[in-house]
Amino acid sequence: MKRAVCLLSGGLDSSTCLAYATREGFECYALSFDYGQRHRVELEAAARVAAALGAKRHLVATIDRRLFEGSALTGSAEVPKHHSDTELGHGIPITYVPARNTVFLSFALAWAEVLGAADIFIGVNAIDYSGYPDCRPEYIAAFERMANLATKAAVEGGSRLRIHTPLAQMSKADIVRFGAKLGLDFGLTHSCYDPDEQGRPCGECDSCLLRKKGFREAGLADKLDYVR
Amino acid sequence: MKRAVCLLSGGLDSSTCLAYATREGFECYALSFDYGQRHRVELEAAARVAAALGAKRHLVATIDRRLFEGSALTGSAEVPKHHSDTELGHGIPITYVPARNTVFLSFALAWAEVLGAADIFIGVNAIDYSGYPDCRPEYIAAFERMANLATKAAVEGGSRLRIHTPLAQMSKADIVRFGAKLGLDFGLTHSCYDPDEQGRPCGECDSCLLRKKGFREAGLADKLDYVR
Repeated sequence: MKRAVCLLSGGLDSSTCLAYATREGFECYALSFDYGQRHRVELEAAARVAAALGAKRHLVATIDRRLFEGSALTGSAEVPKHHSDTELGHGIPITYVPARNTVFLSFALAWAEVLGAADIFIGVNAIDYSGYPDCRPEYIAAFERMANLATKAAVEGGSRLRIHTPLAQMSKADIVRFGAKLGLDFGLTHSCYDPDEQGRPCGECDSCLLRKKGFREAGLADKLDYVR
Repeated sequence: MKRAVCLLSGGLDSSTCLAYATREGFECYALSFDYGQRHRVELEAAARVAAALGAKRHLVATIDRRLFEGSALTGSAEVPKHHSDTELGHGIPITYVPARNTVFLSFALAWAEVLGAADIFIGVNAIDYSGYPDCRPEYIAAFERMANLATKAAVEGGSRLRIHTPLAQMSKADIVRFGAKLGLDFGLTHSCYDPDEQGRPCGECDSCLLRKKGFREAGLADKLDYVR
């Protein structure tokens, strides 16, 4: 059974991506990160999803949060609310974390090399492109190229490393439909940037709005218990 | 004053590289890593060197060691000894750490973005090429290309990020001569893979042998107090 490292935040996208890798027959090693997120409910969701999808192992790697200083997701800045749908996905959001996917993929690469895996899955998609530079296809291709020069296998002639982005061309509605087809229990996932004390999603941050819109357009019900 | 992030292990190469960046007029932010090295004396050397060279800040970022399982530098494998000079620098050494420079440079990239720095210095050199895939010029070029697609600046039209490798074409003797010219106090640095309890370099590991050879060929005295 071929091993794969699957980046897993516990959100809709990465969970769907893990469900896909599993269906494709990979033995999946799920990798999450503790980088001082303000909301630990994200890591709890990742653990639930990894267990439900039968990941071989789930590693939560700690990343020194001092490197990510100044981001809304780790710092004290206000998470923006009440964006209209038309504003969504334009420009770099305040929730941007510096070089995040580069750090995440680097860790995935290190773990893949230790595990002897030549496949890495990441749930980036078309929605992210305009907002996050490190979600764009040209970025992923450049990372893959660099990775294939970086490792022992690159020098000793092992398998070529591949970064899989099965959701690359999908809208949020596409992802909801795809996840449903794969049998993913969306109720286990978590997407909110600003949950309340009980961990309930706010329903108003960019991430909640995008998710709601995705379910609405896909014509499917979202089981999450939104605050609003 | 332009800011630069300088990777600093506390060894001969990275210390010389930091001395060079300082002389070039950069305000230097030295970045070291605690990744479960067996010998903490390395991090102490980095702190000494950063202070002596007047680095603006020295950050020791913690990296989750579970990602680097199976390497001699972090695990329980024996550090190889008594290599002849002719064996040095051929093939991938047991001291190889999976995807290490990719992880280190990713952290440097994240910190550079936070600091608004467009320059990263790393002391890779010709000696390393044959042993470490992630020290080769083609690897560094691929990382730089990827980095320039990864960040906010890449999208918003900021300065192009540059990975500087001033020692790239140098032998160990060249580096010793270069460091001496820059006024670096080599006695502050530390290169040994296997120091004794007092932190004295063993004099027999690959790293000690390479260093001794470098000083010998440069015709300069190494102030370190080797065990052998």
